[in-house]
Amino acid sequence: LADKGVKVFDLSADYRINDAAIYEEAYKLKHLHKDWLTKAVYGLAEIFTDNIKSAELVAVPGCYPTSILIPLIPLLRADLIDHTRLIADSKSGVSGAGKKATMTTHFCEANEDFKPYGIMTHRHRPEIDNIIGRASGKRTHICFTPHLVPMNRGMISTIYSTTKASKAELLAAWHKAYDDKPFVRIREDGSIPSVKYVANTPYVDIALYTEETEYGTQVIIVSALDNLLKGASSQAMQCFNIRMGFDEGAGLR
Amino acid sequence: LADKGVKVFDLSADYRINDAAIYEEAYKLKHLHKDWLTKAVYGLAEIFTDNIKSAELVAVPGCYPTSILIPLIPLLRADLIDHTRLIADSKSGVSGAGKKATMTTHFCEANEDFKPYGIMTHRHRPEIDNIIGRASGKRTHICFTPHLVPMNRGMISTIYSTTKASKAELLAAWHKAYDDKPFVRIREDGSIPSVKYVANTPYVDIALYTEETEYGTQVIIVSALDNLLKGASSQAMQCFNIRMGFDEGAGLR
Amino acid sequence: LADKGVKVFDLSADYRINDAAIYEEAYKLKHLHKDWLTKAVYGLAEIFTDNIKSAELVAVPGCYPTSILIPLIPLLRADLIDHTRLIADSKSGVSGAGKKATMTTHFCEANEDFKPYGIMTHRHRPEIDNIIGRASGKRTHICFTPHLVPMNRGMISTIYSTTKASKAELLAAWHKAYDDKPFVRIREDGSIPSVKYVANTPYVDIALYTEETEYGTQVIIVSALDNLLKGASSQAMQCFNIRMGFDEGAGLR
Amino acid sequence: LADKGVKVFDLSADYRINDAAIYEEAYKLKHLHKDWLTKAVYGLAEIFTDNIKSAELVAVPGCYPTSILIPLIPLLRADLIDHTRLIADSKSGVSGAGKKATMTTHFCEANEDFKPYGIMTHRHRPEIDNIIGRASGKRTHICFTPHLVPMNRGMISTIYSTTKASKAELLAAWHKAYDDKPFVRIREDGSIPSVKYVANTPYVDIALYTEETEYGTQVIIVSALDNLLKGASSQAMQCFNIRMGFDEGAGLR
Repeated sequence: LADKGVKVFDLSADYRINDAAIYEEAYKLKHLHKDWLTKAVYGLAEIFTDNIKSAELVAVPGCYPTSILIPLIPLLRADLIDHTRLIADSKSGVSGAGKKATMTTHFCEANEDFKPYGIMTHRHRPEIDNIIGRASGKRTHICFTPHLVPMNRGMISTIYSTTKASKAELLAAWHKAYDDKPFVRIREDGSIPSVKYVANTPYVDIALYTEETEYGTQVIIVSALDNLLKGASSQAMQCFNIRMGFDEGAGLR
Repeated sequence: LADKGVKVFDLSADYRINDAAIYEEAYKLKHLHKDWLTKAVYGLAEIFTDNIKSAELVAVPGCYPTSILIPLIPLLRADLIDHTRLIADSKSGVSGAGKKATMTTHFCEANEDFKPYGIMTHRHRPEIDNIIGRASGKRTHICFTPHLVPMNRGMISTIYSTTKASKAELLAAWHKAYDDKPFVRIREDGSIPSVKYVANTPYVDIALYTEETEYGTQVIIVSALDNLLKGASSQAMQCFNIRMGFDEGAGLR
Repeated sequence: LADKGVKVFDLSADYRINDAAIYEEAYKLKHLHKDWLTKAVYGLAEIFTDNIKSAELVAVPGCYPTSILIPLIPLLRADLIDHTRLIADSKSGVSGAGKKATMTTHFCEANEDFKPYGIMTHRHRPEIDNIIGRASGKRTHICFTPHLVPMNRGMISTIYSTTKASKAELLAAWHKAYDDKPFVRIREDGSIPSVKYVANTPYVDIALYTEETEYGTQVIIVSALDNLLKGASSQAMQCFNIRMGFDEGAGLR
Repeated sequence: LADKGVKVFDLSADYRINDAAIYEEAYKLKHLHKDWLTKAVYGLAEIFTDNIKSAELVAVPGCYPTSILIPLIPLLRADLIDHTRLIADSKSGVSGAGKKATMTTHFCEANEDFKPYGIMTHRHRPEIDNIIGRASGKRTHICFTPHLVPMNRGMISTIYSTTKASKAELLAAWHKAYDDKPFVRIREDGSIPSVKYVANTPYVDIALYTEETEYGTQVIIVSALDNLLKGASSQAMQCFNIRMGFDEGAGLR
């Protein structure tokens, strides 16, 4: 389709990583259209807005990368946190495990359970590092652990790093990046993002907390989004709106 | 196995109905061992105790029939309620829908939903009438509606009829039938059976409530059990214990 | 407020029953404004539409009565079902138990539990009979059993009666009553109403099923609505729209 | 009671931290019996076994510290992980929020939600550092983030550090500490601890995973326990058994 000039907004994983070697290692598949890898634009709507405006193929990211990249990229671009130690502990509702009926998604298995999965092997880990590199120039190796929560939808990522900057400087980087973006909400009143506030909405809520210790200043970032909307379909709509020159939030409010 | 003299405790549906025509109509299957239909004993442990003691093949009932037959049979045997109008509105946890991963058992389908299913077509309806007939001699056509509850295990049946007897007479029939039975608990303190009190136990709790109206005396019966235990495996164990001459509750307390 | 000419849409229970004696018996309270009891209009939007148009005080019904009265009234008005035997077995999400933090609404009590409550004592029972009388002239004594389901919102009522009419006649009465009403959906394709289809919407879905037996024709009615919307706030909005001459669904779609 | 010679097994928080200043800072209370602070033994059954044997007052720890200290202490004692960077991301079922009916424990608030709370302010953080110091001599400042999961019971802690040791060395330290302990299960077959495997049991399951990166070797530890058993009452029983010279698992299997 893209070869024929149709503008494509792709929710699959095939054009998210722009390096075929990383893709093939992560997905154990041969990539069939490597020529498009460098032409595809990563559809993280608030970060690659300008590229999306003229994109032919937008590779819309999924829920885990969106929830991690939105808070991290402005801080890494401004060199405000230690990019050599990034930990993302993410928790997803069961719809994140897919529509297919499997033992993992069986009600009696998922209900009243909670667990990590894909430790150190999840395919979104190399994607996150790849995009951080493209957006900020930093070489990272994020430590990413996804967990399954017994609820239908919603996602929280709790992200850990250390910083030499002040909380005000960290928040300033976020404000600079997102004050003109309709769907990123910075919570700085001390309240904590939660699934309830973002479920069934196109928003991602982000907040950060710092603590000085004798071993440096810890920073904890919390982000919350609906994995089916900002983590999938509403972000695709956002990209479509940006590409077509429509209001970014058309059809989403 | 049964032909070879092995004592069989069967949790399948194949020998529960002792009339091949009803079975074949309900299951749309040809019955392959009709000779065993009349020899099989229905494993409702408190009702067919004596037959179980010498049974070669025990057809252990499932959760819906157990939750309905245990409270109804003593009242029907004593002719205390109107057998021409019996309504059983039953509600089961998702484990009742089976171990198989299907759309029905997918977490995101079952969670935050509630619904009836199999209205007027559920295969347990003819079984319930068949057993009522065998146990009490009454010809009935129970109106049975199962529902799916978003919880792992447990079952409530809310059963409706009318009566010309007093509440005391109804309770007396239960006491006569069950006072020497370890796993039937009659609640007559006004409290209401609930899944919490029976989940993970081999008990069935029963209670009844009456109300006089200008159109006669309504009776509401509530029964509660764990569909995986008294509604399946622990009842099979009970039958086994009875058959072998062991203490009825061996291994179950 | 109503005395001063303000149009009032009241979600409390105080003006739903138009007979002070029944109200005082059910609520164990002295009624303070009996003069308004006969002036108040019951806000079941599809049934009392014409009265609502000129009402000064609309007593908007709650979830249980709405889910039971919407399917029953057209059938009782046309004398199609046996009004002397009406049973409503209703199931509500936990939000129906109120916003207050109580042991009943504690997560660890409600989750993984299911149970009936208020058997033969629930205050909505006399209200339902009162409204049936006002709408159809029939004297009834409905047998009403509410249950609590471990989900946030939604309600199913499974209603039982007998009939001498055909299924087509019953459906025809519904179509006559509701074909021009935007928020009542008659399901007659054999599918079964479920909470998933009505949660977060102003709709009430209704369906019915019949079965001929040697003791007469059973009829089972299933209705589904969102207890917080059609069972409360969206119905209040509907009444407001009707009263003000606006489109009935303004702000609700 | 302890002053009178009664052996006390205390599930409150008052004698867990042996430093009154830290206690008073964390709990905003004046400590009334400081003389007992140094005599009290911390009831982490597998770590302070010998002290418990002769204890007069056992301060039994709660769920978060148990789930974090059990895996960490052997590794810190053997100096195998970087004690200056310890992150514990913990997730608890709603029973962890207490028996009291509050907005936090209201079904409709907790259900279909997930969120962190008490970020950098939770009172268990100083307790964890205090016990690590007493058990291993290491001065730490753990970064601890608790989260609330919509399930009744169970807890997962996902713990992050870095190491210069091999995975085999880390596991060896665990085996040395726990091979003779009945309720700590080391999972080293690649499977991942989950709530399902420990709910309603007195066990704590632990596993660890390592990954070499250009910035050092990451180590992820996962522990799972039932917050009401190994995280509370069954651990108190374990302490009681140890103190009285009974079999450690008496009454718990």
